[in-house]
Amino acid sequence: MPDLQKYTRYLERIWETQWLTNGGEFHEQFEERLRLYLGVEHLNLLVNGTIALLVALQALRINGGEVITTPFTFPATPHVLYWNNIRPVFCDIEKDTMTIDPVQIEKHITPDTKAILAVHVYGNPCDVEAIDSIAQKHGLYVIYDAAHAFGVKVHGRSLLEYGDISALSFHATKLFSSIEGGALVSHSHKQKERIRFLRNFGIANEEHVIGPGINGKMNEFQACFGLLHLDVVDKEIEKRHQLTDLYRKKLANLDGIRCLKDILHVKHNYAYLPILIDQDAYGIGRDRVYAILKECNIMTRKYFHPLCSNYPCYAALPSSIHSNLPVAHRISNEVLCLPLYGELAPSTVEDVCKIIQEIPNTL
Amino acid sequence: MPDLQKYTRYLERIWETQWLTNGGEFHEQFEERLRLYLGVEHLNLLVNGTIALLVALQALRINGGEVITTPFTFPATPHVLYWNNIRPVFCDIEKDTMTIDPVQIEKHITPDTKAILAVHVYGNPCDVEAIDSIAQKHGLYVIYDAAHAFGVKVHGRSLLEYGDISALSFHATKLFSSIEGGALVSHSHKQKERIRFLRNFGIANEEHVIGPGINGKMNEFQACFGLLHLDVVDKEIEKRHQLTDLYRKKLANLDGIRCLKDILHVKHNYAYLPILIDQDAYGIGRDRVYAILKECNIMTRKYFHPLCSNYPCYAALPSSIHSNLPVAHRISNEVLCLPLYGELAPSTVEDVCKIIQEIPNTL
Repeated sequence: MPDLQKYTRYLERIWETQWLTNGGEFHEQFEERLRLYLGVEHLNLLVNGTIALLVALQALRINGGEVITTPFTFPATPHVLYWNNIRPVFCDIEKDTMTIDPVQIEKHITPDTKAILAVHVYGNPCDVEAIDSIAQKHGLYVIYDAAHAFGVKVHGRSLLEYGDISALSFHATKLFSSIEGGALVSHSHKQKERIRFLRNFGIANEEHVIGPGINGKMNEFQACFGLLHLDVVDKEIEKRHQLTDLYRKKLANLDGIRCLKDILHVKHNYAYLPILIDQDAYGIGRDRVYAILKECNIMTRKYFHPLCSNYPCYAALPSSIHSNLPVAHRISNEVLCLPLYGELAPSTVEDVCKIIQEIPNTL
Repeated sequence: MPDLQKYTRYLERIWETQWLTNGGEFHEQFEERLRLYLGVEHLNLLVNGTIALLVALQALRINGGEVITTPFTFPATPHVLYWNNIRPVFCDIEKDTMTIDPVQIEKHITPDTKAILAVHVYGNPCDVEAIDSIAQKHGLYVIYDAAHAFGVKVHGRSLLEYGDISALSFHATKLFSSIEGGALVSHSHKQKERIRFLRNFGIANEEHVIGPGINGKMNEFQACFGLLHLDVVDKEIEKRHQLTDLYRKKLANLDGIRCLKDILHVKHNYAYLPILIDQDAYGIGRDRVYAILKECNIMTRKYFHPLCSNYPCYAALPSSIHSNLPVAHRISNEVLCLPLYGELAPSTVEDVCKIIQEIPNTL
């Protein structure tokens, strides 16, 4: 949490101006400081990450047909397709990064395909070069759900610079937060202006409404929180980095437990600590590990489980068939996100790892 | 604005619990207190009024076909139809209340009609009985955009009890505010539960996503603001009532200027002060009055102008043709909302009225 006294000083200013939302001064400051922090050229704030993604599709005028996406993601990803009248086409994922598998994308392309909506899962960059080359070849848009990818860089360049638009989320549970919040990174002034109109009902000025926008405005209370969080996020990333190293070291030689690895030339953000539990090698499966840890008062998350392709609203889609998504199914059944936040004591990490180490011995 | 010190005390609690959103304690308190204040049985908070309305349609499973609505409204009203894949059918309005004209509704009903989306403009109740009887006869849903109708009662009963769902808005510019915010009033526990799931991505529990919901969550900072605003809103309504009476008295006998009247058996909320300027009788038209007042540093609003049916995205619809909407066109060209807020000095009201009285003499 940012400093409450500093936050209260911002509030005094809000009470003075009585400007609560609709592009107030803190909104403008936050938008600009965040843009500079992330090292991108065009950024719009939005009320949350879901509305950001929903507006991204509208900004690109994608409001029908099919979009190829991943089933291994939060519900918001396919849901924004629904809201834009688009049929999701689920594509399998790659086992090491858990992001959409570029080798599988092309077989899903039809005359109705409009775009690829890929997700930088746990902040692991998608294979952006391969995706870009497919998009080039077939004339498709690329939208990145970068809800997990705050601050991630590839070869020293912001990951958000890839694709046509990237969407960020600043939900309370995220590495970086503005209470609720989100942003879009686009690549032209024209696109940024369009997003600015669309997040405010499509209102361009008093006399003109340019299209069916939405209320996607971030308010001043969120912006102030985000401004103050920007001051401390680097420290948070550094702490999580150290805890991640500790987790990885402690779990390194454990049969059936796999941690993610850092990728060459990638500056990671260490937002999550997913492990994969191979039931055959480890002795018991993910669901039982989850339950045992819960009994020890250690709260973990089956993130992402179930797959989006298994939700009743998407399960009947042709691409949701199990045989199309073998890797996603395996990962979704093996993955468990362990506790990770800056204030977490290293000794707690050691305790968690000890339990995980000892489980096979107790079977 | 609510008291900053009280607000800060709420924040101290938020900093203590670190619970920022997702149905925190203030959210739950606010939802319940608001429900009691409004005198309704089933109420869900939402992040803003637009998302509320968008979710209302989804809650009723209206996601295609046609919905009959009014062109004399804020862009959010037709836009939520777009987001639910529905074609708006614009119906003319009634000249005294400026709400949808029930006499005109039936001629717009086709086999594709799903619902009537009516707006309680300036808090004036629609002809709810007539609309209800049409809906009964044709088996249509009725949704009320009650963004203006906070606290309005008819025959001592909340106006929000009419129709299948009513949507409220608590935007900063509204009579009652939670910074940004909104709510839905529905009429069964089942419907309330469905809305509760839909505003949180359709997540029913860890294992089940029941449909393509959205992120429509109100956060704790909004809820605290709303809680404190509830304490002062009655006083605000009372002050606006007095100022409204003053405006009406001062403008009563002015040729070409028409104020709204209180309606029998209605408890009004006095949220807005619209006047209608008849160019022929008054001497000059609304746009020039707006400009003259602006020169005197009096900010008024052409609210609602232009009509939604004139936005480029809706202008080509068959129902947008001018001859279908004669009353709406006239009202939209005549209406001007004068300054009205609790802190407004009565002497300022008198000054504004004096200018309006004198304009015809200066021509």
